[in-house]
Amino acid sequence: MASPIGVAIVGASGYAARELIQILLKHPGVKITTATSRQDEAPRLDALHPSLAKRIDLTCETFDADRIAEKAAFAFLALPHTASMAVVPALRERNVKVIDLSADYRLTDPQVYEDWYGHAHTDVAGLGSAVYGLPELFRDRIPTAGLIANPGCYTSTSILALAPLVAENLIERTGVVIDAKSGVSGAGRSPKLTTHFPECNESFSAYSVGRHRHTPEIDQILTTVAAGQGEAVEVIFTPHLVPMDRGIFATIYAVPRQAAVEHDLLDLYRSFYADSPFVRVVNHLPATKDSAYTNYCDLTVRVVRGRIVVLACLDNLIKGASGVAVQNLNLMLGCPEETALI
Amino acid sequence: MASPIGVAIVGASGYAARELIQILLKHPGVKITTATSRQDEAPRLDALHPSLAKRIDLTCETFDADRIAEKAAFAFLALPHTASMAVVPALRERNVKVIDLSADYRLTDPQVYEDWYGHAHTDVAGLGSAVYGLPELFRDRIPTAGLIANPGCYTSTSILALAPLVAENLIERTGVVIDAKSGVSGAGRSPKLTTHFPECNESFSAYSVGRHRHTPEIDQILTTVAAGQGEAVEVIFTPHLVPMDRGIFATIYAVPRQAAVEHDLLDLYRSFYADSPFVRVVNHLPATKDSAYTNYCDLTVRVVRGRIVVLACLDNLIKGASGVAVQNLNLMLGCPEETALI
Amino acid sequence: MASPIGVAIVGASGYAARELIQILLKHPGVKITTATSRQDEAPRLDALHPSLAKRIDLTCETFDADRIAEKAAFAFLALPHTASMAVVPALRERNVKVIDLSADYRLTDPQVYEDWYGHAHTDVAGLGSAVYGLPELFRDRIPTAGLIANPGCYTSTSILALAPLVAENLIERTGVVIDAKSGVSGAGRSPKLTTHFPECNESFSAYSVGRHRHTPEIDQILTTVAAGQGEAVEVIFTPHLVPMDRGIFATIYAVPRQAAVEHDLLDLYRSFYADSPFVRVVNHLPATKDSAYTNYCDLTVRVVRGRIVVLACLDNLIKGASGVAVQNLNLMLGCPEETALI
Amino acid sequence: MASPIGVAIVGASGYAARELIQILLKHPGVKITTATSRQDEAPRLDALHPSLAKRIDLTCETFDADRIAEKAAFAFLALPHTASMAVVPALRERNVKVIDLSADYRLTDPQVYEDWYGHAHTDVAGLGSAVYGLPELFRDRIPTAGLIANPGCYTSTSILALAPLVAENLIERTGVVIDAKSGVSGAGRSPKLTTHFPECNESFSAYSVGRHRHTPEIDQILTTVAAGQGEAVEVIFTPHLVPMDRGIFATIYAVPRQAAVEHDLLDLYRSFYADSPFVRVVNHLPATKDSAYTNYCDLTVRVVRGRIVVLACLDNLIKGASGVAVQNLNLMLGCPEETALI
Repeated sequence: MASPIGVAIVGASGYAARELIQILLKHPGVKITTATSRQDEAPRLDALHPSLAKRIDLTCETFDADRIAEKAAFAFLALPHTASMAVVPALRERNVKVIDLSADYRLTDPQVYEDWYGHAHTDVAGLGSAVYGLPELFRDRIPTAGLIANPGCYTSTSILALAPLVAENLIERTGVVIDAKSGVSGAGRSPKLTTHFPECNESFSAYSVGRHRHTPEIDQILTTVAAGQGEAVEVIFTPHLVPMDRGIFATIYAVPRQAAVEHDLLDLYRSFYADSPFVRVVNHLPATKDSAYTNYCDLTVRVVRGRIVVLACLDNLIKGASGVAVQNLNLMLGCPEETALI
Repeated sequence: MASPIGVAIVGASGYAARELIQILLKHPGVKITTATSRQDEAPRLDALHPSLAKRIDLTCETFDADRIAEKAAFAFLALPHTASMAVVPALRERNVKVIDLSADYRLTDPQVYEDWYGHAHTDVAGLGSAVYGLPELFRDRIPTAGLIANPGCYTSTSILALAPLVAENLIERTGVVIDAKSGVSGAGRSPKLTTHFPECNESFSAYSVGRHRHTPEIDQILTTVAAGQGEAVEVIFTPHLVPMDRGIFATIYAVPRQAAVEHDLLDLYRSFYADSPFVRVVNHLPATKDSAYTNYCDLTVRVVRGRIVVLACLDNLIKGASGVAVQNLNLMLGCPEETALI
Repeated sequence: MASPIGVAIVGASGYAARELIQILLKHPGVKITTATSRQDEAPRLDALHPSLAKRIDLTCETFDADRIAEKAAFAFLALPHTASMAVVPALRERNVKVIDLSADYRLTDPQVYEDWYGHAHTDVAGLGSAVYGLPELFRDRIPTAGLIANPGCYTSTSILALAPLVAENLIERTGVVIDAKSGVSGAGRSPKLTTHFPECNESFSAYSVGRHRHTPEIDQILTTVAAGQGEAVEVIFTPHLVPMDRGIFATIYAVPRQAAVEHDLLDLYRSFYADSPFVRVVNHLPATKDSAYTNYCDLTVRVVRGRIVVLACLDNLIKGASGVAVQNLNLMLGCPEETALI
Repeated sequence: MASPIGVAIVGASGYAARELIQILLKHPGVKITTATSRQDEAPRLDALHPSLAKRIDLTCETFDADRIAEKAAFAFLALPHTASMAVVPALRERNVKVIDLSADYRLTDPQVYEDWYGHAHTDVAGLGSAVYGLPELFRDRIPTAGLIANPGCYTSTSILALAPLVAENLIERTGVVIDAKSGVSGAGRSPKLTTHFPECNESFSAYSVGRHRHTPEIDQILTTVAAGQGEAVEVIFTPHLVPMDRGIFATIYAVPRQAAVEHDLLDLYRSFYADSPFVRVVNHLPATKDSAYTNYCDLTVRVVRGRIVVLACLDNLIKGASGVAVQNLNLMLGCPEETALI
């Protein structure tokens, strides 16, 4: 086997970075050669993440584009939004390919970005070149991309659940209800009251009703999927917090244009995802636990009193973040899509 | 104070019975004088429920209507469906007032009962006399009732969340989406694989999609609330299991007949529940934890992209079962509705 | 009934304060007349604790000893250590009786306080007058006290579990192993990484091994219990964090001076706690859940390979903090010890 | 690479089997060629375990030694005790190598087996040939074994934590206290009341105090480790149930023969496990979460008031069952010990 390709982890202290490192450690084609952290002292990776003890011997550095370009052909950015677009241009100038796990390059219209994120976009040129990294829909464009906008976790779940219906123009395009539920790791690693154990444990709650930032991302990609079919897709998206570590579950309600038949819909989904190794169209009602710690998205469809109900789930840190990032890497490397992911 | 009134607990081994006993132990007007269990040996209540140690000194008996009539003016039935209707006639004949926590007397049409529960109803006469025990809607009829059909937990949450909208004829009556989530105690105390800790912990899943038995109960009561306004209410009801002990959360999506304004809706709800001490219309997004271990139902309303979203929660074992049972008892006794419940 | 006595909650924002308020709301003899918080804006109690909505209508004030003295005969202090001893003298001077839930008045020797807490004690006079508020051991001294040092949660569990053995001089006094486990609410309400849900959920860990501040408190009180029997008690205390909201469980290993017989020990415990309504000596192995949300301490004793193993548990926020505080209040008021607690 | 070696999973329906299958699916040197289940209908593996969907296409058969011998060189037995010894002789006669995850071949003295398990041992000859499969201690004997007795989960944790101290004769050999805590998956997959979610969630409890079957196993192996140093090791073992899926944590208290020094002990442990890739001697206090879903055992040592306190943890289903089983397989195959495990 050829010598492994160097990859950099930019922003190593969070959960997505930790998962990413664990996956990449199993990848025969790459080697993590450098990692950065904004923490003052230069922590070892296994000090940030004790679960990495004995598995990787690397000390975080502060970000330096030259140094990354010297050591890595690919950089994974696990940074907060706005921090990504501050470093992407320097990396791209140095020909480092970038897989960005933040939201900075997902929304193609910089005004929409500003409306939802409250900051002007500072790399509009980069935005134009980014490819949305959902392999199940954009598998053809990913291999040659220089900058991947890795999708949001709620977004992937929702889009994978709705794409077949939208692509086939089977449902009303407005008023699609996405009732979504997430484990707490989706809220990141910074302690705050809402994610303090005695507050969110043994509790179920809604948050950001009507104003969650994954809303325009879902609208945009589904509208793309529906291309040429008239009005834009507009979803009613409601996120909730579930007292568990990981997993996203979306229950989606859509109004069919014509009377829907359950087994026809299941056939459609199976056909649509026939070449997608990580989507499992199941007959039973899915549970997040069956997809936890894997790169699978499990989904099924039901017809209830004339409405189409899609139920989909995945692991927010893997298929919803770091696993799909490696899936994108695999496509860019030209190696099997499943590498390090099964 | 007058000497306390005797009450019986019929079916003492489950969670609703345990909660009921704990509440009644605080009630100055009643005394638990007898309890029954179908278990072979006659267990002490604190053997069934170790949390009751030192709090009540009573041994379960097998069911005997005469003995109950001798010792108690009220009987709470915490039995599975079909078991309740097997004993209610004998109790009513002996003038024992009955608060039935099972589903047996909730559906007024015996055919609907048979369709959803798979058993013919064996006490149609009793069915005709039962009063649906949701005090917020039927406070006037409860005091004189001899038989109370205590509502289901999902049902109470859903109805309290929708009643103001339906009563005021503000929403489309079909296609109302109720996305409901329940803690695991809602599944009862009998061990089975789906509620085995390593199966449901750290997992979120849907179940009984399109066929949960609380569906016709919600339809029926809301149609009553909508009386005289045309077509029946028909809901799309989807229950989910949340890895927590207790709590029900319902996220409800309705299509307004006319453009809805959030603060007007909040005003409507506050007005509708002005005399209901256990409904708290809040401005913030509710969390099950704030109503856990209480008899409160917390709810709020939002307007999202033209849809009305109602978010409501309560403790399934208290406001969803045993607390509302005592609320009904209080109304029947003529004592303050809050007695033993705050 | 006489008009209720005014009580103040000093430091209303934490979990112990919330539990205290909930208990006091059920107490027929007292009324919460004022509450303080160090937060800048003056929050309503139900803004700090949404579970209190509709239950209490009070806005927090900043601390003012005169104002408290005017409105309250008793003040409960739910403050961090050092903050309590900064306000106690002013309250005592104004004849307000104080029940202090912090650690400031528990250790009788100010040097021991300084050694373990890292601060010099600033109210040594007050220290001399404080009564340790564990009713099961000091029921006689509490009624006339002006200042109660409410015990720590680990401490109460450990002392109740060991007091009969120590009082009867049945065990070796050094090398007593206390392996203790606590739910996460024991760590308070301030968010930090160790109590961030995705860190501590699904995890069991030890912390502060060999240096937890409840160690000298356990040593001191047990040495008092052993009075006149020679050497001081010295425990090996190891706390652990359990992924649950509430509950403390202690598994205690002691070397008997003479061969121990299990049922004799159980008899001893039952006799020792015969007059203590909140200690339940049970035959089965206790579980924290059975004492959760109650003021009971459940315990039992076993003999294993010649060692005495005591297993004890209680709710850290109630019997371990706010419940015992009200138990102390009841003794000071001369009303039944169980008032508002059953 | 040579064609993969066939392996059989005997008893495929439980958690250890599921984990085993997931690990073996990553193993380049083996292929699961057959699986058995005692269930009446012949379920597919992904019907038993939905998480295996799309990952393995195999239907369970009933047990047939000839068929297994035909298809597999190795059989993993994930059976209850007594069921293993009923099939091992037939497999060994057919030269199938066996890795038995049950307790049947762990205790070398059949009388001890009978005393603790309540059944006479029916394969005493097999017992004599079995090798105890704890690679860290018996790495030399495993490669040539035909029958491996895979250790218990509590046992592995306890032995790895104590072996260095016992081997070096540093501690008193009786009265060693092992206070152990396990996640609920350790109780298996059969639903029962004690593992019903609403019973064990949010609860911490002890069970089987003084009579857990891992006790004689720990005694036996540690006595072997102490060989030639006099009296047998005798531990006080107390298991507890933690409301989490997986993980075992042991807090161990030992009396040193001479004054113990913490950093010397840490050096000893590091040296003792220098060649063991799956034991991580850490400086910080370990948490089960850092070893969850891995084959690592994390441990550290402290000296508290003259006692040695060892804190160790591992994932009960992996390092405590299926991971160590594959570690044993790797040694028997002569491939790197870490294969499929990192």
